[in-house]
Amino acid sequence: MTTLNPDILRRVADGTERMVSDLQQLIRQPSVSAKGEGLAECARLVSTMLEKSGLDSEILYLGEDISVPPVVYGEVQSRSNPDKTLLFYNHYDVQPAEPFDLWSHPPFEGVRKGNRVFGRGAADDKGELVARMHAVEAFLHTTGDVPCNIKFVIEGEEEIGSHHMGQYLDKYKSKFACDGIIWEFGYVDANGRPIISLGMKGLMFVELAVRGPARDAHSSLAVIIPNPAWRLVEALGTMRAPSGRITISGWYDEVRPFTRTDMELLESEEFDESMFKEEFGLDSLLGGRSGLEARKALAGEPTCNIAGLTSGYAGKGAKTVLPTVATAKLDFRLVPDMIPTRQFARIQAHLASRGFGDIDVAMVHGESAARTSPSERLVSDVNNAAGAAFGVRPVMNVSNPATGPMASFARILNAPCVAVGGTYVYSRIHSPDEFARIDLLEKTADCMCRIMDNFGFPQVTSA
Amino acid sequence: MTTLNPDILRRVADGTERMVSDLQQLIRQPSVSAKGEGLAECARLVSTMLEKSGLDSEILYLGEDISVPPVVYGEVQSRSNPDKTLLFYNHYDVQPAEPFDLWSHPPFEGVRKGNRVFGRGAADDKGELVARMHAVEAFLHTTGDVPCNIKFVIEGEEEIGSHHMGQYLDKYKSKFACDGIIWEFGYVDANGRPIISLGMKGLMFVELAVRGPARDAHSSLAVIIPNPAWRLVEALGTMRAPSGRITISGWYDEVRPFTRTDMELLESEEFDESMFKEEFGLDSLLGGRSGLEARKALAGEPTCNIAGLTSGYAGKGAKTVLPTVATAKLDFRLVPDMIPTRQFARIQAHLASRGFGDIDVAMVHGESAARTSPSERLVSDVNNAAGAAFGVRPVMNVSNPATGPMASFARILNAPCVAVGGTYVYSRIHSPDEFARIDLLEKTADCMCRIMDNFGFPQVTSA
Repeated sequence: MTTLNPDILRRVADGTERMVSDLQQLIRQPSVSAKGEGLAECARLVSTMLEKSGLDSEILYLGEDISVPPVVYGEVQSRSNPDKTLLFYNHYDVQPAEPFDLWSHPPFEGVRKGNRVFGRGAADDKGELVARMHAVEAFLHTTGDVPCNIKFVIEGEEEIGSHHMGQYLDKYKSKFACDGIIWEFGYVDANGRPIISLGMKGLMFVELAVRGPARDAHSSLAVIIPNPAWRLVEALGTMRAPSGRITISGWYDEVRPFTRTDMELLESEEFDESMFKEEFGLDSLLGGRSGLEARKALAGEPTCNIAGLTSGYAGKGAKTVLPTVATAKLDFRLVPDMIPTRQFARIQAHLASRGFGDIDVAMVHGESAARTSPSERLVSDVNNAAGAAFGVRPVMNVSNPATGPMASFARILNAPCVAVGGTYVYSRIHSPDEFARIDLLEKTADCMCRIMDNFGFPQVTSA
Repeated sequence: MTTLNPDILRRVADGTERMVSDLQQLIRQPSVSAKGEGLAECARLVSTMLEKSGLDSEILYLGEDISVPPVVYGEVQSRSNPDKTLLFYNHYDVQPAEPFDLWSHPPFEGVRKGNRVFGRGAADDKGELVARMHAVEAFLHTTGDVPCNIKFVIEGEEEIGSHHMGQYLDKYKSKFACDGIIWEFGYVDANGRPIISLGMKGLMFVELAVRGPARDAHSSLAVIIPNPAWRLVEALGTMRAPSGRITISGWYDEVRPFTRTDMELLESEEFDESMFKEEFGLDSLLGGRSGLEARKALAGEPTCNIAGLTSGYAGKGAKTVLPTVATAKLDFRLVPDMIPTRQFARIQAHLASRGFGDIDVAMVHGESAARTSPSERLVSDVNNAAGAAFGVRPVMNVSNPATGPMASFARILNAPCVAVGGTYVYSRIHSPDEFARIDLLEKTADCMCRIMDNFGFPQVTSA
C-alpha cells in the first residue's frame, strides 16, 4: 500500500527509451579516473542531464587544483515537505577499459543488444545514475514536486578510491546536509532479487617496488645478480597463505565480530554458488569456501589481492633479461574496525622483519569500512520500496564486499546509508563486456520513486 | 712472432672509419628476431657487406617457410692453403630495444660519441661481425688471398634461441664443413684483457600461465575467487630458494663436475667484483657469492631466472581487479650434461607434485651446453693471436655464462669452437644504451687477422 501517484510510475515505465538513450550518451563520454581521461567533459554532461531532469545543478571544485575531478551537485527542494532530505550518492567516473581486445563491443559506444546496453560504466555507475535521474524527473514532470528534498552528489574519483571525497564532504557539509543517503548502487541477484546492502568494505591500495640492478641485465648474470622479480615473489609469499589468510602479524586484531543480527541476516542470505562458479569458470571457490563460509567471507573477510604484477619482458617471444625492477599492485579490503594507516604500518613492519626492508612500499589510497545498523528507519523504507518495485522480497546484506567512501559520508553527514539499485550481479563490472540490463534499469527507476515517497511520507509507508 | 704481412695490419688500422660507418649502417637496420622485425632486410644488407669485403655470399633458407629467418653465408677460398677452413659464426638479429625510455640515444640510429657507438646490437653482435669482415677484407685487399679458407655463417634467430640453427647445420653440413669455429663474440674485461671462452651454457626458456576466473573480476570477489597471480607466486616460490638454488627434484643430477684443469683455469681467472657491483649498482652478489664461488657460478652454475612477470593492471594509478591470467617467462641456464627435455619434464613433475598441475607450462626453446677442451690446437692459436692483438695475456675461461648453439655446431660440424672477440664486458648488451667501443673493434679486427694467420700456417705460430 502506498500513496504514490500511479501517473508517476507510468511516466517511469513509459520513459525507457529516454533512459537508455541517456545511458548511451553517458557511456560515449569516456571518464576514466585512473587516467584522468574525459572527467571534466563527463561532469558537464551529467550536470546538463540533472537540469534536464528538473534539478538545479552546479559543478563543485575543491580548490585551485584542477587535477582534482569536480563533484557534480544537483538539488530540488520539496514544496510539500521541505524538512526532510534524501541524498543520492553516485559517481560519473569509470574503470579503465583494458584489456580492449577482450571486448565483444567497443567499450565507449553504448551498443544496445536485446535487453542489454554494453559499455564501460554501463552498470557501474552510469546505469544507476540515469535510473535515479529519471525517477526524480517522473515526479517533477507529473506533479511538479518531490516528496522530500532531493540532493545528488556525483563524484569523479570513485574508481580510484574517492581520494578527495572526504575533503569535498568537509567543505560542502552544509550543502550536502541530509537525513538519509542512498548509496551509488545495489546488486540484483540471479533470481531477480534486489540486494540491500548496509555496509561497504574499506580498501587500502598499496604498491610494492623491488629494485634490482641499475639497469636490465643479460640473464646469464642471474648466477650472481639478485633478480628483483624473485625477491618480489619471495616477499609476497610471506604475506598471505594459499587459503587467503593474511599472514602479516596483527592483521586481524581490530576486526569487528559479526553481531547476532548480522549472523541472522547472513544465514538468511542466499548465494547461488553453482551459478557464480559457472559465470567465472571456476571449479571451486578460494580455499574450498562454500555456503555460509562464502557469505561470511563476502560480508566480512579482509583480503590481500594482487591487482597487478609487472617485471621484465612482457612482449611476444623470448627475451633473456634480468629486470631492473619488479612491482606489485595490491589491494587489501578492510572491514570494521580496521584502520588503513595502522594496517599499512603493519605491512612495513612485516617486510622489515622478514628481511625485505629494502622494498619500496607506498599506500596509494586508504579508506575505512562502514556498516549501517539494520534498525535505522531508512532501512525499512528502502526494503519496502524494493520489494514493491522488484516484486520479490529483497535480500538484506550485512555488507557489500566492495568499497566506497561510505564511512566518510556516514561520519561527516551523520546520516544512515543504504545501498540499493539495479546492477545485475553478473553484469561484468570492471571487466570486458560490462553491461546494464534494461529491465533492471526500469525497475530501479520505479524503486527510487517509491523510496523517495516512503522516505518523504513515512507515516503512510507499509510493508 | 708471426709471419703476418704488416701491410695487412696497417690496412686494418687505417680502416676504422669504414668499420664504424658499416656498424652504424647495420645498427640503422633494426633486426629484432623476437618481433620478426627487419630480418630479411638486415640479411640482405649483411650479404652485401660480405661481398664488399671480397667474399662470395648467398642467403640460405631452410625450406618453404618464410617465417624462418634466413642464414647469411659467406665464403672465400684460399689459393695458398685450400685444405684448412676456419668458420666465423655470427648473428645479425638483435634483442628488442624495450624499454625505449631508458635509452639516452635512440636505439636504431648508431649515435657515435667519443670512443663509443651506441645502439641495439652495437656490441651484440653487429660490432663483432664488422670487425671480422674488415679483417678478411684487409687480407684480400692487401695480398689478394687469405691464409685458409674462410666461411661466415650468420644467423637471424640467436636472440630468441637459435631455433632453426640445428636444422640449418644439418641441411648445409657440407657447405659449412670446417676445421675450427670462431664463436660469435668474446668479452674484453675492465682491464682490457680478452676473455677466451671455451664453452657456452645451455638455455631452456619456459612460459608458465596460470588461469584464473574466465574474465577479469572485481577485486572485492578476492574473498572467494582464486587469484591466478597468487597461484603463480606460490608455484614460483616452490621452484627456487633465495640463494638461487633450484629446488626442483633431480635438477642437478646430470651436472658435469669441473675437471682439475677447469679448476686451474677458474682459479687463475680474475673477476673485478667491486667494478661489477658498481656497474650494476649492487651492494652484494646473489646469496653473498664472492671470489672463486662467483667465478664457479658464472662458468658452471645452472640458473632459474624470471625474465618476465605479468598479471592484471600495469597502467598508471589503481585498478581493483582480480586478473584472469598470470604468466611468468623463465629462463633456465643449463650446463653440461643437462638435457633440456629431461629438465622440462622435471618442471612438469614438480608442479604436478606440488598441487600446481593445472598450470600451463610450455618450453619455448631448449638448448644444451657445450665446452671445448683446452688441449685443442685452435685454443692456442686463438690465445697467441689475442695476446698479440690486445697486448696483454688473455684470460682463458672454462665457459661463458651465456648461451648459443655451440653444442649443435660442435656436434654437427665436428670441429672445436672458441669464443673470442671485442665486446667490452660492460657494454650493456640486452640493455638500454648498449654500445661498442671503437678501440676494441680495431683490436678485434687485428686479432682476427692473426687468428686466420695462425690457423692457416700452424707450423710457424708461437707463444
